[in-house]
Amino acid sequence: MTSPPDDVLQLLRRRGRSPDPAALESLMRGVVAAPESLAGPEWVELFDSQPDAELTTALTAWRAELSKVDDGLEESPAPAHRLADLRGELKRRGLDGFVVPRADEHQGEYVPRRSQRLGWLTGFSGSAGLAIVLADTAAIFVDGRYTLAVRAQVDTEAFVPHQIPEESPEAWIAANLPKGGKLGFDPWLQTVDGHERFARAAARAGGSFVPVEQNPIDSVWRDRPAPPLAPVQPHPVEFAGETSEQRRRRIADVVAARGADVALLTAPDSIAWLLNVRGGDVPRTPFALGFALLHTDGHVDLYMDRRKIPDRTVAWLGNAVTLAPPEELGAAFDMLGKTNKRALIESATAPYWAATRLQAAAVTIVRDVDPVALPKACKNPVELEGIRVAHRRDGAAVSRFLGWLAAESKGGTLREIEVSDRLQALRQETGKLRDLSFDTISGAGPNGAIVHYRASEATERTLEPGSLYLVDSGGQYRDGTTDITRTIAIGTPTPEMKDRFTRVLKGHIALATARFPAGTTGSQLDALARYALWQVGLDYDHGTGHGVGAYLSVHEGPHRISKVANNVALQPGMIVSNEPGYYKTGSYGIRLENLVAVREANIEGADRRYFEFETLTLAPLDLNAVDVSLLTEAEKKWLNAYHTRVREVVAPQVDEATRAWLTEATRPL
Amino acid sequence: MTSPPDDVLQLLRRRGRSPDPAALESLMRGVVAAPESLAGPEWVELFDSQPDAELTTALTAWRAELSKVDDGLEESPAPAHRLADLRGELKRRGLDGFVVPRADEHQGEYVPRRSQRLGWLTGFSGSAGLAIVLADTAAIFVDGRYTLAVRAQVDTEAFVPHQIPEESPEAWIAANLPKGGKLGFDPWLQTVDGHERFARAAARAGGSFVPVEQNPIDSVWRDRPAPPLAPVQPHPVEFAGETSEQRRRRIADVVAARGADVALLTAPDSIAWLLNVRGGDVPRTPFALGFALLHTDGHVDLYMDRRKIPDRTVAWLGNAVTLAPPEELGAAFDMLGKTNKRALIESATAPYWAATRLQAAAVTIVRDVDPVALPKACKNPVELEGIRVAHRRDGAAVSRFLGWLAAESKGGTLREIEVSDRLQALRQETGKLRDLSFDTISGAGPNGAIVHYRASEATERTLEPGSLYLVDSGGQYRDGTTDITRTIAIGTPTPEMKDRFTRVLKGHIALATARFPAGTTGSQLDALARYALWQVGLDYDHGTGHGVGAYLSVHEGPHRISKVANNVALQPGMIVSNEPGYYKTGSYGIRLENLVAVREANIEGADRRYFEFETLTLAPLDLNAVDVSLLTEAEKKWLNAYHTRVREVVAPQVDEATRAWLTEATRPL
Repeated sequence: MTSPPDDVLQLLRRRGRSPDPAALESLMRGVVAAPESLAGPEWVELFDSQPDAELTTALTAWRAELSKVDDGLEESPAPAHRLADLRGELKRRGLDGFVVPRADEHQGEYVPRRSQRLGWLTGFSGSAGLAIVLADTAAIFVDGRYTLAVRAQVDTEAFVPHQIPEESPEAWIAANLPKGGKLGFDPWLQTVDGHERFARAAARAGGSFVPVEQNPIDSVWRDRPAPPLAPVQPHPVEFAGETSEQRRRRIADVVAARGADVALLTAPDSIAWLLNVRGGDVPRTPFALGFALLHTDGHVDLYMDRRKIPDRTVAWLGNAVTLAPPEELGAAFDMLGKTNKRALIESATAPYWAATRLQAAAVTIVRDVDPVALPKACKNPVELEGIRVAHRRDGAAVSRFLGWLAAESKGGTLREIEVSDRLQALRQETGKLRDLSFDTISGAGPNGAIVHYRASEATERTLEPGSLYLVDSGGQYRDGTTDITRTIAIGTPTPEMKDRFTRVLKGHIALATARFPAGTTGSQLDALARYALWQVGLDYDHGTGHGVGAYLSVHEGPHRISKVANNVALQPGMIVSNEPGYYKTGSYGIRLENLVAVREANIEGADRRYFEFETLTLAPLDLNAVDVSLLTEAEKKWLNAYHTRVREVVAPQVDEATRAWLTEATRPL
Repeated sequence: MTSPPDDVLQLLRRRGRSPDPAALESLMRGVVAAPESLAGPEWVELFDSQPDAELTTALTAWRAELSKVDDGLEESPAPAHRLADLRGELKRRGLDGFVVPRADEHQGEYVPRRSQRLGWLTGFSGSAGLAIVLADTAAIFVDGRYTLAVRAQVDTEAFVPHQIPEESPEAWIAANLPKGGKLGFDPWLQTVDGHERFARAAARAGGSFVPVEQNPIDSVWRDRPAPPLAPVQPHPVEFAGETSEQRRRRIADVVAARGADVALLTAPDSIAWLLNVRGGDVPRTPFALGFALLHTDGHVDLYMDRRKIPDRTVAWLGNAVTLAPPEELGAAFDMLGKTNKRALIESATAPYWAATRLQAAAVTIVRDVDPVALPKACKNPVELEGIRVAHRRDGAAVSRFLGWLAAESKGGTLREIEVSDRLQALRQETGKLRDLSFDTISGAGPNGAIVHYRASEATERTLEPGSLYLVDSGGQYRDGTTDITRTIAIGTPTPEMKDRFTRVLKGHIALATARFPAGTTGSQLDALARYALWQVGLDYDHGTGHGVGAYLSVHEGPHRISKVANNVALQPGMIVSNEPGYYKTGSYGIRLENLVAVREANIEGADRRYFEFETLTLAPLDLNAVDVSLLTEAEKKWLNAYHTRVREVVAPQVDEATRAWLTEATRPL
């Protein structure tokens, strides 16, 4: 029962429309393929520009009905016949194997359900991974975060698990692909750089790496979801701080300076930033999937499904943005070739399809980084002010949550999911929450030590006295994206817990108070956050800081603070997280995360330009977990000043009980 | 008057020898071309294996006579006719220009006088630079250290000065070489990598970069010194800790593992380490210039002038080392080609000549780093113990110096050169000093702010009350190479001086006490040494630490601690300097340098392998320049413990007056 219900058809006809049932159904399939928004059923606009309550109700009921169709992604491990079906399909096509990455065409952190081919084939739900299927054997590659998960979710008889980077898919291909074997891949899912590595590996095995026109999984995946259709909405200049025209012209100049006539943008957040629009095609991240060509005159050709762009957004995009269906991208390349154009692509993220199609069209390729990435990372004053407002709002919600937790956890019965539900509810009470910025990590005791933990009914634990509780969460607001981690002592922490917590705090403060000359990269600062832990032989196996978008991806580049070498200097306006941690497997996890913005330090008598961090996140750090004797006077001073600021900003926004708790929670040391 | 004096000839004949005057003279020219050694006239052994006092006196007098021949290197600026002569020579050869680097064939820090073509041509005496001569114009490129020096030493009408890296020679070539122009270069002096960059630049100008068989400067430089001949001496296993056979076999395995049959070694310190020999062809660094081919069976072909290798050293080298004249290297390449060998070269340092000659000989080239560099950097326990002994000895000499300085500087009349002479004399009094490890930097007041300052009669200043005095010096001992910088308050320092001194000290201590996981590079630690300065908007424009050899180069790789990205992880046994600084131009300079060795940290309960630094250098840091209020308890603890160690080690080695001063200088804070 998927065709449009009568009430929907009638309500639309009553509005003078002559609805085409097939088109309506197709549209609704796309809507269902997009995630539900916490902001309400805004997708109804895609059916009618002025929906009333009655139409909304009818459409919502239909959506709910259609959502019941099983797309096969909930089963884990995946049924064995799927692998058999795929192998049959490969055989029909004369292929000896096929590579199944977790990625979609845009290489983002979240992929729409229709692109979750790895999950459908194996049952694996992690955010990074790769399967390689040969005729008699298959392997799945995941990183250290998912070594446990892959064994729980995947039939490891069918897919032998391997851990990257210790074991590489390239080495596996070189060792396992039969001589003369054809290893297929979807050229939309393989990047230009990734293709080079895999093609070399296949060649070492005496085989070849072969692009396949139509993904063979799509031929055997029944009930595969449609491309997601979430409404594309204007992102007003009051938040963006710059018109799209200004941005297009600015980036067009960058493209020209790099010796190209046009840039192919494949990252949806780059497109969202450039055009001042937001969408909702994937979970937790407000962008619309599509491609764009930016010409050096500032004109943009946007390759995106027209059905998800309401007329008001088309008007907002203006005349300098031409809309076209994604299928026409190849034809556009042909036009570029005919006029001898040079096209910039980022080889680390652009699909192999694009590079070969450009070459086939005789377009000269300029390999360079996405020209939007760096300008997008450097927030303008309006964006920064919006982000500050978002953090003040979010900090009050989180503080209400922490106050509630302090009171309620005394009973020793709280469970991880109800606690994160409470946090979400308090953020929703702000009335401004569009979405979470990622799935909340709510980890009690040993679960806190699992860096990318996600609570389920099967795994969740009680917040027990004498344990630590770690909660990493964030909100998507129109004015900003937040990301905060707090670790809370439930009852009385052990001296060891306090020692570790305080060392993590010392690292956090060292980074928060650092000043550094222009030109300094996050790689140079990373050790500051680890020094106090290193002194006692402890470390954490994740980066110290990631970039964060302005109502966009909660993880963005091109900068970062990490052990991994990175050559992008920190610059004013960049947002980055400050999140050292410590994890004792089987016992507890600690992470203290604030977002900070890079700003000018303006030091009198400075010998050059210096930058420093402005801490944006505002919620108490748990003083009950601090061993004050380990802190220097300067560290205590920072902590007291931070808590004073938190109190001053949060107190006026919260109820009396929270305020009373806040006074105690932000007491000076 | 250069032919052998009669007394020399007679003394040799009396020993039953039939000396060939021309050969003797040629040998003495080579001896003269090498620096004089502080260890005495050991070169006499090259004339007779058992010289007596009479022969030594006669030879020494002849050497002194021959040393008076002016090789033209003392004139600065250089006479204008040299550039004219060179241009004439270029014209005769049909060249439109020529590149004159400061480098020799080995790309080391010190070059023998005969290779100081840049200095001869321009008058510039710095340790890094490059001139490019075209028909109508010429440019000289130096880095920030030498911007002042180049203007003082060079006729800047003839050679227009440019500062690298802001202005690059490549850009200059691209802009100035005439279309179709032939820019010549000496293929022995240009590295493989450097050639690629310059050839691209010449091509951009529409010209070409042309190797020249015979360096045209050599055709016009009359009285150019001979290749230096300093005696090559065994470096006993009691210092090396490993026989040359063990080393040759160990490195041969590395070469094989990198897929090569032979490695061409062009770095003299790599050869010295591999063969357990030391020489004296260039100042301050005890190695012999030459080339070596290491085969995967551990056999070495050593291309080195036989005249500088005494028979006892030939015996020491043993049967697995074959001696050959450097001129035969090309023929050896031909042999490699005939047997289808693959040769490893380091393209960053190997001469372009070697790469093209190998290619001409049909040898397959494997580009990789020098296989000796990393093993050489990781000192074995015997080397480390020798280095500790050298530092205890050196620390006593430096402490005697500092005690003397404390007493004598009160008069306010000491001058920079007499002070550094005193330091050298005290090191010589140890009876073990072979040489300084570099020219002492002795900078009073504003001269201390010149990072690579070298005192001359024209520039030296008095050590005035209320000023800071910086002295950076080191000794070459058979058991180790030292390098220490102390900054001393002469009279009462200003509060600003104390603040800066203490911030430099905080950086020094942060690094000295750091522990870090295996895999950490010096680039990751660099910011620890700068943090306290950065906080007040100050920084220093040099690296924080360089590797140091074991009775070898005072600057060695492959590791370093610096802002510049470096991917070589610090490993146990590596020696590195810890030398943060601060320089106020026109006022004072501060640098506090100790050498440290990387060692296992052995932390109980550590989550992985950790390393830490063992401080090797032992001499007081000037407490009179410390602002104690800026130090944390942990920092004071380190300083007190360090001074206790200094006192315990140094006191038994010094006179009573020094001991009394030492007690005060190492008082606990």
